[in-house]
Amino acid sequence: MNLRVRFAETDGMGIAHHAAYVVWLEAARVAWLRERGLDYRDLNAAGVHLAVSGVEVRYRHAARFDDEVRVACVLTAIRSRRAAFTYALTRVEDGVTLADGATTHVPTDDDGHAVRLPADWLSALQGLIEPAERVGSAG
Amino acid sequence: MNLRVRFAETDGMGIAHHAAYVVWLEAARVAWLRERGLDYRDLNAAGVHLAVSGVEVRYRHAARFDDEVRVACVLTAIRSRRAAFTYALTRVEDGVTLADGATTHVPTDDDGHAVRLPADWLSALQGLIEPAERVGSAG
Amino acid sequence: MNLRVRFAETDGMGIAHHAAYVVWLEAARVAWLRERGLDYRDLNAAGVHLAVSGVEVRYRHAARFDDEVRVACVLTAIRSRRAAFTYALTRVEDGVTLADGATTHVPTDDDGHAVRLPADWLSALQGLIEPAERVGSAG
Amino acid sequence: MNLRVRFAETDGMGIAHHAAYVVWLEAARVAWLRERGLDYRDLNAAGVHLAVSGVEVRYRHAARFDDEVRVACVLTAIRSRRAAFTYALTRVEDGVTLADGATTHVPTDDDGHAVRLPADWLSALQGLIEPAERVGSAG
Repeated sequence: MNLRVRFAETDGMGIAHHAAYVVWLEAARVAWLRERGLDYRDLNAAGVHLAVSGVEVRYRHAARFDDEVRVACVLTAIRSRRAAFTYALTRVEDGVTLADGATTHVPTDDDGHAVRLPADWLSALQGLIEPAERVGSAG
Repeated sequence: MNLRVRFAETDGMGIAHHAAYVVWLEAARVAWLRERGLDYRDLNAAGVHLAVSGVEVRYRHAARFDDEVRVACVLTAIRSRRAAFTYALTRVEDGVTLADGATTHVPTDDDGHAVRLPADWLSALQGLIEPAERVGSAG
Repeated sequence: MNLRVRFAETDGMGIAHHAAYVVWLEAARVAWLRERGLDYRDLNAAGVHLAVSGVEVRYRHAARFDDEVRVACVLTAIRSRRAAFTYALTRVEDGVTLADGATTHVPTDDDGHAVRLPADWLSALQGLIEPAERVGSAG
Repeated sequence: MNLRVRFAETDGMGIAHHAAYVVWLEAARVAWLRERGLDYRDLNAAGVHLAVSGVEVRYRHAARFDDEVRVACVLTAIRSRRAAFTYALTRVEDGVTLADGATTHVPTDDDGHAVRLPADWLSALQGLIEPAERVGSAG
């Protein structure tokens, strides 16, 4: 997905604050699912969440206010009790790499207890995996 | 430092959102410096920032609204062009480990270019290092 | 309550972002209740929330990174189906007024439907009202 | 502009947190300018900011995770030393009104001192004013 750096996301250094990237990874993950016909709200409605068990971001180049940022998302691992994504963030204007990221996830129920991913979601996600090179490792 | 989980920091899963932890690491880092007589604003006023080059968080147990969270901070590496911290987040009420974290930093000037840490800051921080066991690794 | 402006709360103008104040009002409201023996989590556990129906902030003077900010909170109206607070934000260092604010609230259930405030909370809050001068009006 | 409610923007009530709307107003304002050929970064580069002097939001209906929200923006007043906008937030799916908002602004320099808006910006904005009915009043 592409997004614009919001002014609220900048900080006193005049650049996008590093915590904003973590929010962008999540937004990209949800968009990535939606683009593949998987509505994360449906999973939630079934009482399952992909709780984040680890996150890692390596910052390469500062993003600035109003920069258009592309967040590419890759599903690198999927099992009934674990999922992992990696991310590459680039500035759309010139393709400069802004950051790499990785997240790991544990399916949980509404009370936060670990559960198995529903069979239909597991099956759908297994078809979307890209074991390719990982851009980082978290959790 | 200790902090209370704000309602604004909770999410639709009813727990503290994972990006909030990244903000807490930063607040703890600034407080850690202040408690040791180092005012981060002084460094900024001298035109130097500890830009974040990497962040990693591993989530162990969910923090909830209004939980009092202790964020312990350890300086694990300091050189003129690099700093690294690790963090342990615990729930004050019962000591449960909530998360571990790690950040790496590069001193930069106001324009984001890498610079050397001022000698007085480097010297002061070298006296505060705890090479101890690292709770994670980032960047 | 008093709080420190977090670096994550600053923006590209080098000051605390205006949306951060709205988060501070909420944190002050929760602390104000707690200091008076009212745990907002207890109300939530009873299935009732004080949903925000209106917010207003007037910014007088910019808060900066690491400033200690005092948020004074006044309950100006309380009925079974409505509550209103006003706020005065000052910089602790020199007492400068940073902002004034006001929020209005509607008690709701977990599904967001308007409900009556539980009798014990209504009674307790009625004893805490300060009809004083209002610093603003919202919603 | 249209935006999607991010999961990070939801709170423990399962709805978009009320402070997120303030961030959305800002994003909509910047997009509104851009769509009219005015790049807010150009104004900043000229050393001028539209500092927020007041904000008001009235919440009508809760926005939920992944809702697509339309934020309509109206410039209601513009002078060399003051600007005012109003906003109407609707859910794209069914047109339900989510909230109304209003902001007032004071042009400032990089140090936060009030200045006059550059003549070209003032002129361009005067051509974009819609004195229409105001949806609220702030500051």
